[in-house]
Amino acid sequence: MNELEQLQQLVEGITPTDQSARDRAKIRQAQLTKPPGSLGRLEDLSVWLAGIYGTEKPTIAGKAVIVCAGDHGVTKEGISAYPSEVTPAMVQNFLAGGAAVSAIARAVNAKVLVLDVGVNADLADHNDLIQAKVRRGTGNIAREPAMTRLETAQAILAGTNAARIAIEAGANLLAAGDMGIGNTTPSAALTAWLTGKDVIEVTGRGTGIDVVTFSRKISIIELVLDNAREAGLEPDDALAALEVMGGLEIAAMVGVMLQGASAKIPVIVDGFIAGAAALVACGISSTVQEYLSASHVSQEPGHRIQLTHLKLEPLFDYGLRLGEGTGALLAMPVLEAAARALTEMATFAEASVPNKR
Amino acid sequence: MNELEQLQQLVEGITPTDQSARDRAKIRQAQLTKPPGSLGRLEDLSVWLAGIYGTEKPTIAGKAVIVCAGDHGVTKEGISAYPSEVTPAMVQNFLAGGAAVSAIARAVNAKVLVLDVGVNADLADHNDLIQAKVRRGTGNIAREPAMTRLETAQAILAGTNAARIAIEAGANLLAAGDMGIGNTTPSAALTAWLTGKDVIEVTGRGTGIDVVTFSRKISIIELVLDNAREAGLEPDDALAALEVMGGLEIAAMVGVMLQGASAKIPVIVDGFIAGAAALVACGISSTVQEYLSASHVSQEPGHRIQLTHLKLEPLFDYGLRLGEGTGALLAMPVLEAAARALTEMATFAEASVPNKR
Repeated sequence: MNELEQLQQLVEGITPTDQSARDRAKIRQAQLTKPPGSLGRLEDLSVWLAGIYGTEKPTIAGKAVIVCAGDHGVTKEGISAYPSEVTPAMVQNFLAGGAAVSAIARAVNAKVLVLDVGVNADLADHNDLIQAKVRRGTGNIAREPAMTRLETAQAILAGTNAARIAIEAGANLLAAGDMGIGNTTPSAALTAWLTGKDVIEVTGRGTGIDVVTFSRKISIIELVLDNAREAGLEPDDALAALEVMGGLEIAAMVGVMLQGASAKIPVIVDGFIAGAAALVACGISSTVQEYLSASHVSQEPGHRIQLTHLKLEPLFDYGLRLGEGTGALLAMPVLEAAARALTEMATFAEASVPNKR
Repeated sequence: MNELEQLQQLVEGITPTDQSARDRAKIRQAQLTKPPGSLGRLEDLSVWLAGIYGTEKPTIAGKAVIVCAGDHGVTKEGISAYPSEVTPAMVQNFLAGGAAVSAIARAVNAKVLVLDVGVNADLADHNDLIQAKVRRGTGNIAREPAMTRLETAQAILAGTNAARIAIEAGANLLAAGDMGIGNTTPSAALTAWLTGKDVIEVTGRGTGIDVVTFSRKISIIELVLDNAREAGLEPDDALAALEVMGGLEIAAMVGVMLQGASAKIPVIVDGFIAGAAALVACGISSTVQEYLSASHVSQEPGHRIQLTHLKLEPLFDYGLRLGEGTGALLAMPVLEAAARALTEMATFAEASVPNKR
């Protein structure tokens, strides 16, 4: 079975969440020792988790973020504030524990796994590094497709495999993070293509580009979309859009989301790059949406548009625009609190607390 | 030295946070391996923590919430959805680990201490219960002062003592939670008095009262304020307002905040009851504000007014209206992430990551 067939099989194995468990969770919520509704969104999140895990007593047993890394041929067009060499250097930084995602993961007691699916450099082995390079960076999407269809499937499956490794190591709450200099450009292209919004609405300053670079970035993304239209790309063919626009790490993040849904494990959508991956994942299988939760709304203007399209309501707005999975990690304790409140709180009867007068 | 003199001494020992440490923290932030500003509010929080701890490498070593419990004579007026018997029953629930604050504290790895400063029941000893009952519930503030000046000082000092116990046990991040059936009524009275807003603007449905009870609650609070005006209470005399309006657990929460500021330890302001305590604490010593951070904005309409008055920007809005310290606990991992990012992230130089092209 080749990678395209494997991907097909994975997608066919994704089934809806458990309505009956959600109903039981709502009944339980109403009996817990607190005024009804007083835990607000935590109550909604707990019911959502119940539906995914298929139990009215959900438990977060382990948390992991898979940071997917890849390079982008389109950086040749000068669309980023940082050079491509930053991608492998940051991968080393993740593995050495010195990056933002590393520090925040320690704060929330989550495991960090790094997945190389397309970094344009050779990387030394490391316990927390999964080496699954499909190619050394995407094609320059201003002139050619990001990758072939087979490479797209391979990159997605690298993500599903990494998610499987995290799950086997004990995680039942996942996030997909990103590292790839230049990756807001393919993300903006995918977002414009899959939501139908104008490029100007979904394009931001990325890591912090000046106005001239910003204007060039917009022109390049317009060109990518024009080329796609001329090539007859279907507006709702998410897999084809991913193949044409990239990137490899976005494909891997799609794989993490597909695997989460397949294994009935929630996946937190991080920022703008993760949002683009979520659009693709839900384009491949709309059922995946039931397994996704949004952490934050990013400073990238297209992120809100992605979340609206995905019907996901962010939990917080801390002005983040870093990626790596940093925002998703900050949502993990909120989900854990929601699960523990539903599962561990006493009912009025159990605690002998008088309920209303 | 009596309790009033002890309180005076405590207040005099509160000094401002460290501007020089904040400056060093900002310099360090700019060197860390991420685009400048890309961690948004986490960067601001890290600088705030640096100022409190007096170091550009702040560390959260331990976290505790002190749930202050007391009863309210004004419940005789029928202003709450629940009977007063719920207060001691919930204290037992906290100690047994079955309340929302218990479950969420486990999710964020924080210690829960319960402080009885005025519950109208005898409570059995427990390792996590600090028994410091000043009296069995406040006076009915519709007809008499909540407590005497000396009792007010005693209740505040019970809070400072509880905070000291938590700090000695290793906590350097505190929250004050509340339990006291009827306590949104004194909180609304204090909020109207200390912010100058109309009663109708700062009064909400508490644990969930009907429209008739709500209308009675507003009349009672108007009466409390009328009585205070007639008695010649000064608008900015926060200690006198606390004495007249109560409650005992609010006074204890004031003590937690004063002790935090005195020991140079941050205190997270939880919901509406904690907000009322923060107004009093900052009224007693305006420097306390430098040590406070707001977790969420509550469903109680007066909470936003308190936070605006306190110049505190909430981190999130999850529709919470429970109290107990639940919202403050959810903010703890955010502060921990902020501290770890500043303290533990590598600089561009340390990680050999190219900085800009």
